[in-house]
Amino acid sequence: MTRDDCIALDAGDPLRQHRAVFTLPQGVIYLDGNSLGALPRATSAHVRDVIEHQWGEGLIRSWNSAAWIDLARRVGAKVARLIGALPDEVICADSTSVNLFKVLATALRLQSSRPQVSVLERRFIVTEKTNFPTDLYVAEGLIDLLGHKHELKRVDFDEIHAAIDDRTAVVMLTHVNFRTGAMHDMHAITRLAHDAGALAVWDLSHSAGAVPVALNDADADFAIGCGYKYLNGGPGAPAFVFAATRHLRALTGDAYAQPLAGWLGHRAPFDFDLRYQPASSIDRFAVGTPSIVALSALEVGVDTVLTAGPDALRSKSIALTDLFVQLVEQRCGDQGLHLASPRNSAHRGSQICFTHVDAYAVMQALIQRGVIGDFRAPDLLRFGFAPLYVSYVNIWDAVDTLHQVLAHAEWRPAASQVRARVT
Amino acid sequence: MTRDDCIALDAGDPLRQHRAVFTLPQGVIYLDGNSLGALPRATSAHVRDVIEHQWGEGLIRSWNSAAWIDLARRVGAKVARLIGALPDEVICADSTSVNLFKVLATALRLQSSRPQVSVLERRFIVTEKTNFPTDLYVAEGLIDLLGHKHELKRVDFDEIHAAIDDRTAVVMLTHVNFRTGAMHDMHAITRLAHDAGALAVWDLSHSAGAVPVALNDADADFAIGCGYKYLNGGPGAPAFVFAATRHLRALTGDAYAQPLAGWLGHRAPFDFDLRYQPASSIDRFAVGTPSIVALSALEVGVDTVLTAGPDALRSKSIALTDLFVQLVEQRCGDQGLHLASPRNSAHRGSQICFTHVDAYAVMQALIQRGVIGDFRAPDLLRFGFAPLYVSYVNIWDAVDTLHQVLAHAEWRPAASQVRARVT
Repeated sequence: MTRDDCIALDAGDPLRQHRAVFTLPQGVIYLDGNSLGALPRATSAHVRDVIEHQWGEGLIRSWNSAAWIDLARRVGAKVARLIGALPDEVICADSTSVNLFKVLATALRLQSSRPQVSVLERRFIVTEKTNFPTDLYVAEGLIDLLGHKHELKRVDFDEIHAAIDDRTAVVMLTHVNFRTGAMHDMHAITRLAHDAGALAVWDLSHSAGAVPVALNDADADFAIGCGYKYLNGGPGAPAFVFAATRHLRALTGDAYAQPLAGWLGHRAPFDFDLRYQPASSIDRFAVGTPSIVALSALEVGVDTVLTAGPDALRSKSIALTDLFVQLVEQRCGDQGLHLASPRNSAHRGSQICFTHVDAYAVMQALIQRGVIGDFRAPDLLRFGFAPLYVSYVNIWDAVDTLHQVLAHAEWRPAASQVRARVT
Repeated sequence: MTRDDCIALDAGDPLRQHRAVFTLPQGVIYLDGNSLGALPRATSAHVRDVIEHQWGEGLIRSWNSAAWIDLARRVGAKVARLIGALPDEVICADSTSVNLFKVLATALRLQSSRPQVSVLERRFIVTEKTNFPTDLYVAEGLIDLLGHKHELKRVDFDEIHAAIDDRTAVVMLTHVNFRTGAMHDMHAITRLAHDAGALAVWDLSHSAGAVPVALNDADADFAIGCGYKYLNGGPGAPAFVFAATRHLRALTGDAYAQPLAGWLGHRAPFDFDLRYQPASSIDRFAVGTPSIVALSALEVGVDTVLTAGPDALRSKSIALTDLFVQLVEQRCGDQGLHLASPRNSAHRGSQICFTHVDAYAVMQALIQRGVIGDFRAPDLLRFGFAPLYVSYVNIWDAVDTLHQVLAHAEWRPAASQVRARVT
């Protein structure tokens, strides 16, 4: 494999036209789209139109005339196509953390309303020990608020199956691990959860837009996910939330099953009803008024993914990550790097991690040279591969830079400063 | 009083230069800034810079290089100056509804941790019957989640004082009523609450940026408010949340006192700690990642208010609302309009409501003629007066239009269609 081979791969890449959809700075190889997606070229003009025309000229009238009132559902319906859900099962709202609180509370409520179930017996929320911290915090916060009738059971990746039993209320997992990229088998785990009488809640933050997700095919119960990673919605973009139609139906009579009851979750917000009557649709997972500017930027980002199609994205993602692993091991194999992601592409998302004893300093040196990935404590170099805008030659050049940094120990001068900052 | 008198008032208005800070469409008199503030001229260019340079070129690096990580606190500190709080007591985050959930849960936790208090005895959250619906819904949702140990006591405006007693856990009020503009005496009610052993939570959605608010002078416990009304932050702008320093200190050891525990509430988010250790500051009222684009627009909006100063805003607000009441009663007094707002400007915010039997149709006719206020069921015409950009001659012209609409019964042809839509 040579750099020319990579150029040839790019020439034959069916997604090669999509790179031009994004603005990417000169001199940068961006391998951090799993943290913050790149800027679509169309975003700025669209946001400008929303601000100057819809807000500035339309003012309050734009809630109707520019259909602001439908925007969270319209973007949600687009996200639904990326995650194997029905258009009516997804809404964009709030942050991933807040959405997780909603669906977890709702899932526990569904469990507690099953007559045959004792809350004390079915007390466990099963999760992965290295789940994204906010997911763990949100679950603990809810458990605390509910008076410690439940318990968060934190187990290793390969202990999930064994941990699910008839004491499990909810299995709460991030589909693709935020550090290693290890991917759970959503179908198998959801089936196992259901067989045990539990519900499955999936965090798709590192999946949506990067790997095919089939929520309804897997019979998933609830899901949430992030708008600012592979969906390219911009820093802090609104998140999304999914609830299966069967649960939306079952919850109709229970006003506060989703406990963050806000006016946009009401079946008729503009009635200003003094009594909360939730929408029977996914609208009940809305709470307060969403940022129209932020949702508008998110819509452009989601569109960039929709036009590519999930299979093409997945094929290229696998090719890019396989190539990266291969080249790093070939060219930097004796430099103290160890693969921390699954070697089998079927078992990982669109990112690759290597451990290195001086990972922080190495990443700083890479960023100095324009190769942007990120560091995750204590010793991980994390690289994300957004297939829409990362090219094969990017991979070659990134590995070449990594090789130079490691071979010449370029990171060492900075290391002491860096450690001083971290501690 | 003549139109020329109004032109003279505008010429002598110390805030007259501030109108040019906003983009206002031709042919529109905008009396709905209490629902959605007007667009500041500087917003679009600033947002464009944030999108094209900070996001597009800086990418993930902008969390540090463009200080995105501090933005929610920086804008919060600016809001603090408008509401009589310390810079460290306010953060911008989430929506008003979600923030209310946080502070209400925290206030109940503070109450339950007082050793002398029985939750069952001190079970009431006292509020106003006609509070903004989302506030009522959020409280009921939380009460339901906590197992109905508390109860929402809904009373009339003038019954608040009498309703506060030693069974009151929290007094939860919107400072300025969303319909009538009636304003509570924050100092007196907070004192009464404290004397009874209760805590006071204030919703400042219709106050911040329109009337002077002195949270710390009133010894308020918690507050929340909206970014898209008088703060001109744009549709669905992030909200803000205030917690008094004494409570932030008292809560230090109680990890989930604020139950929406997200990674940005952690004392060191980028440590990716598996255990939640909340920040000891107002940061713990942050949850997930905020929209940087939305916060950036909000900052420009808050700046427009800060440059004016609260006293000048209040003086003009009173002058505008007094003039509006006077002119409407002089010119439309026999047309079935009845003042539904307090006549005494000391007891109201920056809005005026009149009842009319065909209020919906009248408002539609006004909007058709470029005078934008809004309708609130069943019979209210609501007009907001943002003193930064509403002029005295706007008042004259709006009343003139109202007079014409009513005198010629212009609204009647539309009324039947309108009723069909509403029912």
